[in-house]
Amino acid sequence: MILTFEQEKRIIQTLLKKLNASGEEAGIVAEVLGEGDLRGFGSHGILRLPYIIRGIKRGTIVPQSKIKIVKETLATALIDGNHGLGHHVAVQAMKLAIEKAKKHGIGAVGVFNSNHFGIAGYYAEMAIKENLIGIVITTTDPLVHPWGGVEPILGTNALAVGIPAEPIPILMDMATSVASRGKILEAMKKGQKIPEGWAIDTEGYPTTDPEKAAKGALSPFGGVKGYALSFILEILAGSLVNAAVGKEVHGTLEPKSFCTKGDFMIALDPQAYTLVEEFKSRVKNFIVELKTSKKAPGFNEILVPGEPEFRTREKRLKEGIPIADEVWNELKQISQELGIDLNYLKDLG
Amino acid sequence: MILTFEQEKRIIQTLLKKLNASGEEAGIVAEVLGEGDLRGFGSHGILRLPYIIRGIKRGTIVPQSKIKIVKETLATALIDGNHGLGHHVAVQAMKLAIEKAKKHGIGAVGVFNSNHFGIAGYYAEMAIKENLIGIVITTTDPLVHPWGGVEPILGTNALAVGIPAEPIPILMDMATSVASRGKILEAMKKGQKIPEGWAIDTEGYPTTDPEKAAKGALSPFGGVKGYALSFILEILAGSLVNAAVGKEVHGTLEPKSFCTKGDFMIALDPQAYTLVEEFKSRVKNFIVELKTSKKAPGFNEILVPGEPEFRTREKRLKEGIPIADEVWNELKQISQELGIDLNYLKDLG
Repeated sequence: MILTFEQEKRIIQTLLKKLNASGEEAGIVAEVLGEGDLRGFGSHGILRLPYIIRGIKRGTIVPQSKIKIVKETLATALIDGNHGLGHHVAVQAMKLAIEKAKKHGIGAVGVFNSNHFGIAGYYAEMAIKENLIGIVITTTDPLVHPWGGVEPILGTNALAVGIPAEPIPILMDMATSVASRGKILEAMKKGQKIPEGWAIDTEGYPTTDPEKAAKGALSPFGGVKGYALSFILEILAGSLVNAAVGKEVHGTLEPKSFCTKGDFMIALDPQAYTLVEEFKSRVKNFIVELKTSKKAPGFNEILVPGEPEFRTREKRLKEGIPIADEVWNELKQISQELGIDLNYLKDLG
Repeated sequence: MILTFEQEKRIIQTLLKKLNASGEEAGIVAEVLGEGDLRGFGSHGILRLPYIIRGIKRGTIVPQSKIKIVKETLATALIDGNHGLGHHVAVQAMKLAIEKAKKHGIGAVGVFNSNHFGIAGYYAEMAIKENLIGIVITTTDPLVHPWGGVEPILGTNALAVGIPAEPIPILMDMATSVASRGKILEAMKKGQKIPEGWAIDTEGYPTTDPEKAAKGALSPFGGVKGYALSFILEILAGSLVNAAVGKEVHGTLEPKSFCTKGDFMIALDPQAYTLVEEFKSRVKNFIVELKTSKKAPGFNEILVPGEPEFRTREKRLKEGIPIADEVWNELKQISQELGIDLNYLKDLG
């Protein structure tokens, strides 16, 4: 099945509104999931909608709940997401960070009592659109082993940093595991082996067997340095912001009970340090320097963070977004239960 | 040669004061270089003193110069280091960040026109001592190739994050290259091979020959993700703060002309989000969870970021700091030129 961006968004919006989400909430979730799929982050796209809908039905994700600002200074805030849709909570948190950055150079906002929010890069890009630098950190259920350990304790803790630049912005958006759990499950389904280094088995040995990997733990990227980074992110977007850490983080995969993860977002105004046009011009020169330097064997170009995803986005805006049959069938099933004809929605174009 | 921490500091202070550094400046440089050596960061210890002294003699490092705050908001500042001793400039920058964090929850200070400042972790630890979180980023001369590239364009850009915790703080302090250039030069001197993955030759092929590596480029840790992180750090501590990036960064190794690197430091007050005691207790619980989890084959404990260095520090405080003969001989030579008897200083104990 191929969906256009518009079709995907309409489907998400319609289903969520049927489940009591406001137009604004449904619009934001549709936008963020759609952007995830456009950019090739399939595990953070419409595939997530059934999880969200199950959460809403269980009452662990609560549409139309209002966020509360629990603590605030001129440059910081802590937000209680009140179990709202993670994407909607995150948009409000980044808006607040942006507002503070515009007034005081920097805004740093923590979030707890929220839910899985899709691609972290979406919120970093909100800052980019205001000519600000955006930094987004979020935690997940425990999936990654510590350095020297075997048990999954750390999340795949994502770090996104967006930097305004021409002609396209810089947008790093990465998990701190080598690979995602989704890729391991995909290999399992296809009967394929996984590359060594992605994961360990329950005894702590590296494995290429996706079944053993799924029972074991994902490995942090970059060895002990990646472990250290993931550890720090877990504290910043966990302990610091009133959210859980380690094995107490749950609800980012299947929201069976209230989700306990946290987020930490920073917006930073280049104008507090330099002129924004000068900043952008310096970044552009740096990109040119990198791109015109000698290529390594097997490479015909050097890419900057975010570039591969923006290319996939351009392509999918034209050619559409491939949706796996099982995801489509699951969406059909859910739609039926809600009295909605999915094919009718799709055929609206 | 083995020096005590006190001996090392006295030597550094005496030599720098002879070269017109103020007592405060000399004391700070001695403290930071000494802490570098205590923690096992030999490349950032007293080994650096000859570089600093050559810079002072050339006039590219200027003792007793005053920093200027070029731009400032309640939560941010940009500092012109006026080519002062990097350690002294960095201490003032972090003090300003701390002051802002205590008032407004966060302080983010950029620095340009400064010099190599030793271990980044020292300044992150300044924040820890005030019960704040400290983040320190700094750039270096181009040594690291971009992903898909061959030329050294990126610095080994360091990222340090300090988090107040009991019984010892968390202190991540890492370069974004797999290994340091110092380790490659050491292997070259000893006639040893280097592990694959550390560096590439001038054609872009991974090499285990340190001579080829020294002519080629260091590799970023963690593949394309480490490249992305290093790229972002270069922009934050470079383009953003009025400093150079890429091949225009120079002076962090041998300060032949004014150093063009930059620094970016953040202090963040946990009290802006939660109670500091609650924060520390949550972090402690997380450490306990990690340390009591199952160990991987070949490991009998799980360490947190900073722990190996704090252990080396304890050991060296008792047993002294090993100083390589060639470093000692170079220091002797320099001391003689300044009319100082190095052995006399050492024998003061």
